Amino acid sequence: MKVLAQYTKEELAALKAETQKRYDAFAAKGLAIDMSRGKPGSDQLDISNFVLDNLDTYKAENGFDCRNYGLLPGIDECRRLFADILGMDMKNVIACGSSSLNLMFDYIAQCYTHGAGGAPWGRLDKVKFIAVVPGYDRHFAIGSYFGFEYINVPILADGPDMDRIEELIKDEAVKGMFCVPKYSNPDGITYSDAVVERLAKMKPAAKDFRVIWDNAYCVHDLTDDGDELKNIFDEAKKYGNEDIFVIFTSTSKITFPGAGVSCVAASDNNVAAIMKRLTLQTISYDKVNQLRHARAFKDIAGIKEHMKLHAAILRPKFRCVLDILEKELGGLGVASWAKPNGGYFISLNVDGGSAKKAGELCRQAGLVLTGVGATFPGGIDPDDRNIRIAPTFPPVAELALAAELLCIAVKLVCLENAGA
Amino acid sequence: MKVLAQYTKEELAALKAETQKRYDAFAAKGLAIDMSRGKPGSDQLDISNFVLDNLDTYKAENGFDCRNYGLLPGIDECRRLFADILGMDMKNVIACGSSSLNLMFDYIAQCYTHGAGGAPWGRLDKVKFIAVVPGYDRHFAIGSYFGFEYINVPILADGPDMDRIEELIKDEAVKGMFCVPKYSNPDGITYSDAVVERLAKMKPAAKDFRVIWDNAYCVHDLTDDGDELKNIFDEAKKYGNEDIFVIFTSTSKITFPGAGVSCVAASDNNVAAIMKRLTLQTISYDKVNQLRHARAFKDIAGIKEHMKLHAAILRPKFRCVLDILEKELGGLGVASWAKPNGGYFISLNVDGGSAKKAGELCRQAGLVLTGVGATFPGGIDPDDRNIRIAPTFPPVAELALAAELLCIAVKLVCLENAGA
Repeated sequence: MKVLAQYTKEELAALKAETQKRYDAFAAKGLAIDMSRGKPGSDQLDISNFVLDNLDTYKAENGFDCRNYGLLPGIDECRRLFADILGMDMKNVIACGSSSLNLMFDYIAQCYTHGAGGAPWGRLDKVKFIAVVPGYDRHFAIGSYFGFEYINVPILADGPDMDRIEELIKDEAVKGMFCVPKYSNPDGITYSDAVVERLAKMKPAAKDFRVIWDNAYCVHDLTDDGDELKNIFDEAKKYGNEDIFVIFTSTSKITFPGAGVSCVAASDNNVAAIMKRLTLQTISYDKVNQLRHARAFKDIAGIKEHMKLHAAILRPKFRCVLDILEKELGGLGVASWAKPNGGYFISLNVDGGSAKKAGELCRQAGLVLTGVGATFPGGIDPDDRNIRIAPTFPPVAELALAAELLCIAVKLVCLENAGA
Repeated sequence: MKVLAQYTKEELAALKAETQKRYDAFAAKGLAIDMSRGKPGSDQLDISNFVLDNLDTYKAENGFDCRNYGLLPGIDECRRLFADILGMDMKNVIACGSSSLNLMFDYIAQCYTHGAGGAPWGRLDKVKFIAVVPGYDRHFAIGSYFGFEYINVPILADGPDMDRIEELIKDEAVKGMFCVPKYSNPDGITYSDAVVERLAKMKPAAKDFRVIWDNAYCVHDLTDDGDELKNIFDEAKKYGNEDIFVIFTSTSKITFPGAGVSCVAASDNNVAAIMKRLTLQTISYDKVNQLRHARAFKDIAGIKEHMKLHAAILRPKFRCVLDILEKELGGLGVASWAKPNGGYFISLNVDGGSAKKAGELCRQAGLVLTGVGATFPGGIDPDDRNIRIAPTFPPVAELALAAELLCIAVKLVCLENAGA
């Protein structure tokens, strides 16, 4: 197979005509497909319905009535479940409400108004944050809300470019970064042991440097032999760096995105600082929902069994998209993509600054993608190349249409770039 | 009956001996009663268990799947329920998670980091807040966390001292206040129409003045003819002041303190400003729990019926404490208290700077009260007179013991003050 750059003028024209015809046929269908957000399909939600079944008691294992005020750090059985998932001690885990994003926002807000051991970040002339790109739009949006200046650092095949990071953290104004260390959003990359080790032993100039370690996809393997992520907290402790990493996860994509349980896990110092704020912010989280989750799964083994059911639903969806990408764009030399072993996304990189235009062609034909550019701070992808594909929500049949349309759009733009 | 001040030396000595004897007998009992927090008893929680029953559908009335991400402002049926409770339009209500305190904290944090139309409060040299005293410790704690300076304004029989407030708001540094306008915490006072009107037409020097209107006890009557609170939002609109009032309530004491639903209700401008932050802070709240609540009660009539069950449980508890206060302290001229028509507290004011000492005597005999002083900013009651009684949690039998012990302790301290 020839790459597009080797096509003759006539071959380009012929492929253009054929592709345009296919696009027009799609446009005529009046599709309305949403592939924009990483949310589970309703078949995935259904497998967790048992979690919502009536409880036979509202008492936690320590006898505490979950319906009433109190137990701000969460019930033990739920904290222990998260501790097992994250490989941490229960004392370092606070079980909270349904949203880990909320916990991350609040933690950054806390650093902004009250600091992380040093001066409140809001009192500083400038706060810089490292943006691992492509990344998660909602992470970037939090820093932007608080006026942080982002410095892009590319993610490589085994995690963020550590050479670049080690250089950047020599600047005291660089205060932190967000990481999705397992099945990164959107590339599905799991940080290698070497990257985790280099992160763990960082010596940032800023004594209050913080890494928001968003382990959103910690148990979200697509196959039985998913990626292994080295335990950042254990590793950081070796270097006295455990205060740098603040760890988050949730059951949003284990049970329900709208009605799960989240947690923050951190060093003794950080837990104390977080609890100091939490004590003022709320009296306690929804412990009945914590009890539902702890009782439904009991332990990490219960969680892992459950995740196999998700994998069985998601595998065909990921395969569908990947097969179509390969069939339509493979070998053309115009785009590349990763084949993740888990997580919620496929990341498509299009050559020649064509992503926005391809996204617009999709929109015009009835397919909503994640806003092209959204995987970069401020929505600006300097190379205009990254498209995040979220294959989990649409049914496979719709997904096949969506993936084909996306490939056609990409091909059209690349053909134009090639002079067709 | 003679007031204590008219007692002869001998009468004082006799009453002192008798009271000391009673106290010693109590101390010997080894009591362990917690009357510190305004939380429902487990019999109250039980009457709401039906709310947690399995739902036959997870679809909201508009067809939205409550288990998934989305619908950040909450499901319509839940927003409408709160709108009815508060007498507002659904469009001005956002239904959220379990904690209204969290919403208040976050709103103040928003003003601190991003302002309320003007400069962020955190950028100002000084932010002053009016503290209506006695009041709710957790309100005061939020302002203290953000470094606000409190100015005490006493609550009178019909609400806060409006003369004083109208004077204070001439200072541009005075940015706001917290109000519990119905069955105030701890006095159980409902603001009169005249007070609500004066608040509604305030002209504060600060253009970004905000009143946190914590309507926590909006439907929490103890009798069928509870107090009526004038609608602050309607009233404020008459004066173009609707941006001043940000209104909060929750089902914490309708269903479950740990597992209910809360809301914030405000003007179009304020809702837009709040949504701007919320969009970054979370993807959506627990809509399954919103659905449980909306389906369980359907409308305001359903809520009111339910509140009668709470009242039936709480009335004997309030009566028990009030009867003992009257029997033990009535006519002695050393203490006063209100007889609230609803809410969660009885407020006892002890003459002669004796509250802390009385609280300490209670503690030594096994009764935990709300920290004496906690009803004032910084925990400092300048007259050392206010004791908050929270009669809802202990069973009536315990409550009778607790109230008697409290009265004995107060009497002992007042007898000492009288020279006995």
